[in-house]
Amino acid sequence: MEETMINHATFIQIEDGSVGTPKGYKTGGQHIGLRTKLPDMGWIYSEVPASAAGVYTTNLFQAAPLQVTKASIAEQQKLQAILVNTVSANSCTGQQGIDNAYTTRKWMAEHLGISDHLVGVASTGVIGLQLAMDKMKHGIDQITLDLPKAPFEKAILTTDTKTKHLAVQFEIDGQNVTIGGACKGSGMIHPNMATMLGFVTTDAAVEPDELKQALKAVVDKTFNRITVDGDTSTNDMVLVLANGLAANKPLSAQHPQWPVFVKGLEMVCQGLAKYIAADGEGATKLIEVQVSGAKDDHSAEVISKSIIGSSLVKTAVFGSDANWGRVICAMGYSGESFDTNKVSMALGDIVLFQNGMPVDFDEEQAIKYLNGHNVVIKAMLGEGNGKAVAWGCDLTYNYVKINASYRS
Amino acid sequence: MEETMINHATFIQIEDGSVGTPKGYKTGGQHIGLRTKLPDMGWIYSEVPASAAGVYTTNLFQAAPLQVTKASIAEQQKLQAILVNTVSANSCTGQQGIDNAYTTRKWMAEHLGISDHLVGVASTGVIGLQLAMDKMKHGIDQITLDLPKAPFEKAILTTDTKTKHLAVQFEIDGQNVTIGGACKGSGMIHPNMATMLGFVTTDAAVEPDELKQALKAVVDKTFNRITVDGDTSTNDMVLVLANGLAANKPLSAQHPQWPVFVKGLEMVCQGLAKYIAADGEGATKLIEVQVSGAKDDHSAEVISKSIIGSSLVKTAVFGSDANWGRVICAMGYSGESFDTNKVSMALGDIVLFQNGMPVDFDEEQAIKYLNGHNVVIKAMLGEGNGKAVAWGCDLTYNYVKINASYRS
Repeated sequence: MEETMINHATFIQIEDGSVGTPKGYKTGGQHIGLRTKLPDMGWIYSEVPASAAGVYTTNLFQAAPLQVTKASIAEQQKLQAILVNTVSANSCTGQQGIDNAYTTRKWMAEHLGISDHLVGVASTGVIGLQLAMDKMKHGIDQITLDLPKAPFEKAILTTDTKTKHLAVQFEIDGQNVTIGGACKGSGMIHPNMATMLGFVTTDAAVEPDELKQALKAVVDKTFNRITVDGDTSTNDMVLVLANGLAANKPLSAQHPQWPVFVKGLEMVCQGLAKYIAADGEGATKLIEVQVSGAKDDHSAEVISKSIIGSSLVKTAVFGSDANWGRVICAMGYSGESFDTNKVSMALGDIVLFQNGMPVDFDEEQAIKYLNGHNVVIKAMLGEGNGKAVAWGCDLTYNYVKINASYRS
Repeated sequence: MEETMINHATFIQIEDGSVGTPKGYKTGGQHIGLRTKLPDMGWIYSEVPASAAGVYTTNLFQAAPLQVTKASIAEQQKLQAILVNTVSANSCTGQQGIDNAYTTRKWMAEHLGISDHLVGVASTGVIGLQLAMDKMKHGIDQITLDLPKAPFEKAILTTDTKTKHLAVQFEIDGQNVTIGGACKGSGMIHPNMATMLGFVTTDAAVEPDELKQALKAVVDKTFNRITVDGDTSTNDMVLVLANGLAANKPLSAQHPQWPVFVKGLEMVCQGLAKYIAADGEGATKLIEVQVSGAKDDHSAEVISKSIIGSSLVKTAVFGSDANWGRVICAMGYSGESFDTNKVSMALGDIVLFQNGMPVDFDEEQAIKYLNGHNVVIKAMLGEGNGKAVAWGCDLTYNYVKINASYRS
């Protein structure tokens, strides 16, 4: 358990916490035969309908499950259950794909005895492959809320090598509130949502409209700040459910502790986002880019994304090469303007570049630093107070290996 | 020799043609000790001052040699010689770097007995490394115009595996006109100039202002349509010299055969650009993306660059995986809007996707096609008459290998 104190609020990270940790949620998964052996279907259930909000891929091709989940939430701004399948992304599958997504939603609702529109659906896997409907039907029929056959966190993975989950606890109105989350995502990860599914639950009571605004703001600073390979998938989605069982007064921007809730949501989303970056396909290192001194936050964000998105920066980190020129170069083609003579750059605390010029540094020390699993690249612009952080991973042989033969 | 007839003009591709092929040019290279053994300095010389124009990187950090070459051309819109060095990019080298570039320009001018401002300089290599001035001086002193020690095309290479050059010949005003070119570039290749140096010469007489416009228009459709890894370097430059020794009437947009000259220039630049894409770091295949039916040419260009820039498309081609979903996905996140239900996609003549839906295709046939060295991806939008072509290469283990240890 780790405690953090921010704005007089104490945030406790719950050991092994996840999307099933807040009050009133049940989660699980099972093997339904989409994959050879591994669990391939997951579900989240709330004892009561929960305020729900989502953010979705910006890709023009938007997969069927996203369209159906949007329709579910549009009905009443509530969800009570989420069904996730792997192997087929149910994307570019035409009307049949949309019909299939609606049918699985209906089967799930019937199985749980709730209304159709209280079910959200999510898919990840190969684009263009229709859902194996017989397996989906059989799988849904097998769901036992109290006796899951596999952990949800594991059942939603594809090329991920690790489960990704966490939960934090804090007080609102004197009540313990918990926010938990789990996600999957490994390749096709890039700002503006990627083949990335994120599920966040809380037992806090939150007004749905403001839950949506908070989610959007937080996702922009967390999930949308990670990149693995610059590809934005058709299936990305982050959903948040707030079922109110913590018995706090409903949260909205007017509530004095609203910033505490938003901070908790950010901690969960940032933690999940970093797990995804660190588990990027083939990754051996988590890269954190910290931009400061930009003319404003937006400019800092654009520059941070340009650096973290550079294949040459990523391969240099993989090779433990303190090639600051590639970082500088990525800043220069970001599209943002700044005075190149004021730019400085460091790897952790090792300054490599100062006021537009290289600095003599200890190569051995830099290599030692780059051999670690967490690499922090700091870019300082000396223009103003704008700052931003972005996360990514190194580009390795294994990235190529994994993606050269994904379908086979 | 290959003949092409366009607009009643016949273009002959000259066997083994290069930047030294047009009348009145001498080119060469030599080993001056920057690299261990390989030639590392190259030069181009025209018997008479030539109309000159250049296009330069859009990176905010613009290397010293680009600034100096711009200053040279600004003087009189003419160049008579170009000096190229490898190993040091002379970028992010501050005032010393600029002073050094001016000094090498002066040395070269003195050695050739011409004015300083008739010399252009170009560098490629590691960013932040100052020029080894003693070696540069000694190297320039050793230049013998009539007895080059190495071919220019070879002396400008870094991680390139092949020399890249060609020349075409056609008639203007009844005179034979030749355009030749050579280039280097392998990694950090992306639209808007990359670590790419292109040198084009012609014996045609061309008005300098219009030479510049023609170069800009042609580069936008050729060099700026290739990508290897999405990184735009600080040193990219394409220079064109036109020395007038073909004795045609000076070409400008008013000349009836202006389109013939521009077409010839495009053929040379397109050929060089494709050589670069095919020789991308670690590449095993040339990928050509043909977008058609877009709402306009600009839209087609954006979509073509999005597809050719996708790491997932590039790894799929490397793995001979007919993963059309990744192509569709890259179209969807290009930022351009179109009706996804009208989109079709083919690999060569094998249609994989039609009107927004996957098509049953012969996987064996697709794998066989993808095993070839030239892969054409066709994306058809059914919206209008906009079209564009872009070139790139597959993403392989060797790309990672080369870039994980570039400096060592």
